[in-house]
Amino acid sequence: MTPGPGLHRTPLPKGFLASGTNCGVRRYRPDIGVIISEVDAVAAGVFTLNECKAAPVLHCAKVLPADNVRAIFTNSGQANAATGAEGFKRNQEVIAGMAEALNCAPNQVLIASTGVIGVQMATDKIIPALPELVERAQENAESFALAILTTDLVPKTVTTVVKLSGGNIRITGICKGSGMIHPNMATMLGYILTDAKITKDVAHTVLKAATDVSFNMISVDGDSSTNDCAFIMANGESQVELKTDADYRAFTKAVIEVSVYLAKSIAADGEGATKLIEVNLIGSPEEQLAKSAARGVTLSPLIKTAMHGEDPNWGRILARLGAEKVPAECLSKMDLTLQGVKIFTDGEPAAFNKEEVKALLKQSNVKIDIDLKSGQYAATAWGCDLSKKYVEINTEYS
Amino acid sequence: MTPGPGLHRTPLPKGFLASGTNCGVRRYRPDIGVIISEVDAVAAGVFTLNECKAAPVLHCAKVLPADNVRAIFTNSGQANAATGAEGFKRNQEVIAGMAEALNCAPNQVLIASTGVIGVQMATDKIIPALPELVERAQENAESFALAILTTDLVPKTVTTVVKLSGGNIRITGICKGSGMIHPNMATMLGYILTDAKITKDVAHTVLKAATDVSFNMISVDGDSSTNDCAFIMANGESQVELKTDADYRAFTKAVIEVSVYLAKSIAADGEGATKLIEVNLIGSPEEQLAKSAARGVTLSPLIKTAMHGEDPNWGRILARLGAEKVPAECLSKMDLTLQGVKIFTDGEPAAFNKEEVKALLKQSNVKIDIDLKSGQYAATAWGCDLSKKYVEINTEYS
Repeated sequence: MTPGPGLHRTPLPKGFLASGTNCGVRRYRPDIGVIISEVDAVAAGVFTLNECKAAPVLHCAKVLPADNVRAIFTNSGQANAATGAEGFKRNQEVIAGMAEALNCAPNQVLIASTGVIGVQMATDKIIPALPELVERAQENAESFALAILTTDLVPKTVTTVVKLSGGNIRITGICKGSGMIHPNMATMLGYILTDAKITKDVAHTVLKAATDVSFNMISVDGDSSTNDCAFIMANGESQVELKTDADYRAFTKAVIEVSVYLAKSIAADGEGATKLIEVNLIGSPEEQLAKSAARGVTLSPLIKTAMHGEDPNWGRILARLGAEKVPAECLSKMDLTLQGVKIFTDGEPAAFNKEEVKALLKQSNVKIDIDLKSGQYAATAWGCDLSKKYVEINTEYS
Repeated sequence: MTPGPGLHRTPLPKGFLASGTNCGVRRYRPDIGVIISEVDAVAAGVFTLNECKAAPVLHCAKVLPADNVRAIFTNSGQANAATGAEGFKRNQEVIAGMAEALNCAPNQVLIASTGVIGVQMATDKIIPALPELVERAQENAESFALAILTTDLVPKTVTTVVKLSGGNIRITGICKGSGMIHPNMATMLGYILTDAKITKDVAHTVLKAATDVSFNMISVDGDSSTNDCAFIMANGESQVELKTDADYRAFTKAVIEVSVYLAKSIAADGEGATKLIEVNLIGSPEEQLAKSAARGVTLSPLIKTAMHGEDPNWGRILARLGAEKVPAECLSKMDLTLQGVKIFTDGEPAAFNKEEVKALLKQSNVKIDIDLKSGQYAATAWGCDLSKKYVEINTEYS
């Protein structure tokens, strides 16, 4: 995916460094990374709702929001979930090692892990590698973005510059999506870094708002992870504060824009995916229904396989909306548009040129527009097609 | 699948006839079928909760429960869902044609359809074929069971004889499961026929109880259909009534046994399935949680692909239980057993011989036992593995 207007792949915001290296958990690929703020930063996080939370998630949920965070460490290959008391102990040991390398307190270090569930962290490999990881830190996100990948095919970073009343600030987003070398979970990790000067409350509020319309609206296979996290870190090094309502709006809009770009990148790079599917649903009588119905369409294996087969099999979309409890009275008047072509109008099948739509479905972006004509609420969700490659990736471990 | 003890493939209960033929909707395979009771029968039904209900579902939900039903007609190839007002009209025309062929009133005829959504029923082919369909009716379920299939690989029928205080009664179950020639929905149709003499209230209550632990506990791909139905028809031709509590219990138990057999047959014959997966969950603090957690495990694409790959990747099971909101305090003491081998004990990974479990997973029946050790509620759910064949079947239409 190419970043849209205003989005670039440029250096990190002021006062941030990042790094990634191989410590030997994985054979060749980088497997540990860190994002460092040169000064204490405001930070907030949102975390998986899975009851089976990994040890790193429990640590971060406890210390955030905070205003003295120095780093987010991340390891790939071992999720440190379902690892019992020993897992918690090892998590704290890694945090202590990172704090020592940075010369800060352990509660100033955040941590995220992704990888196989139920395996203990190889602290004997990770901890000795931490000082070198810190030494290697640079003013760009590339090596960190690589170190956090599992079966992702491409690293995902994006930067935007926002003009506020007091000057320019920068926001960088980095994330990883679905899949693992030893496939296990579609763990999603997201990092938003900015040199804007904001409070921890603003950090938390903006992150939550952005997550709700981005990371929480994507799905690859509907399995929610033990390790999902999204973080925001704001170190104030631009010295630019949010002074006016317009500043606040511009900042929020930019964080949302960065988050949506990252979320779409994850969906497009889902395991085995060949197409990004975007579902725009409008005219819903309720907000929650708009979200669950749009997400439901991206989750349906029958719709995902139909899109993979470039087949305008719209009955599957109607059926999924019904299964998501879109009321029959909405279905009986709704419009459905696929790749810009009206397929179903006013609750009845429309005449359309099937060959034309099949040809349009060959594109790598598929757009499904749904108008329930029953209210003012709307939602957009993103997913990907379901291919034999997904089954292969997730079957052929061991 | 071979029927278990007490279950056989024998003639229909007394006073029932069944038939199936090709009317030309599908190229070669039988595409219409009917079950006829020689006398007015008590009947009840349970229906899909999908808001996008097919025309035949709306008809049956309106007339049932009833005590004067003569027939259940079924067509395969066209679901008559999302077909608007014209779809309702055609549904009524077919019912009228069937009533004429049977010399009864239209409201004595039930109807179920399965097939492509959004296509109008070919009444010009179906209605002229109805008299011959009735003439061909015989005292066995085989031609009907074939006519209702879509991409199912095997017809699914089973019969049991139950000894009640007043004499023997017979119960026959017939069903179809997942998949279509033009793949669309995993529509499930189930038919329970008995010559026991029961009221329509008993018919409804017993069917509901049986459905809750059988058809409602299976999944192939998590997409619920516009056309799912389960029917019970009891014509009293054995002249044996349910007189005692023991009779009532024996009858209920037999209907459940037949329904569970049918449900397992559907899961085992899921699109592309190579393995039947059975999840037994005990020790739940709540009944609803037991059901949703057991079903959740059968729904997870990650668990389904792991089982397909004969990979004891138990972390995926823990993660799904957490995603299904099994409380962390249950996860921290639970036991997990795969093919009889303890994998996770008292909330901690157990040492087990991975090669042994991999070998056991080569069997076509996979058993996952979960003990939450937190209460008295239990549930069993059935599903199947996810193979490349599923993707192929659902991608390669058109």
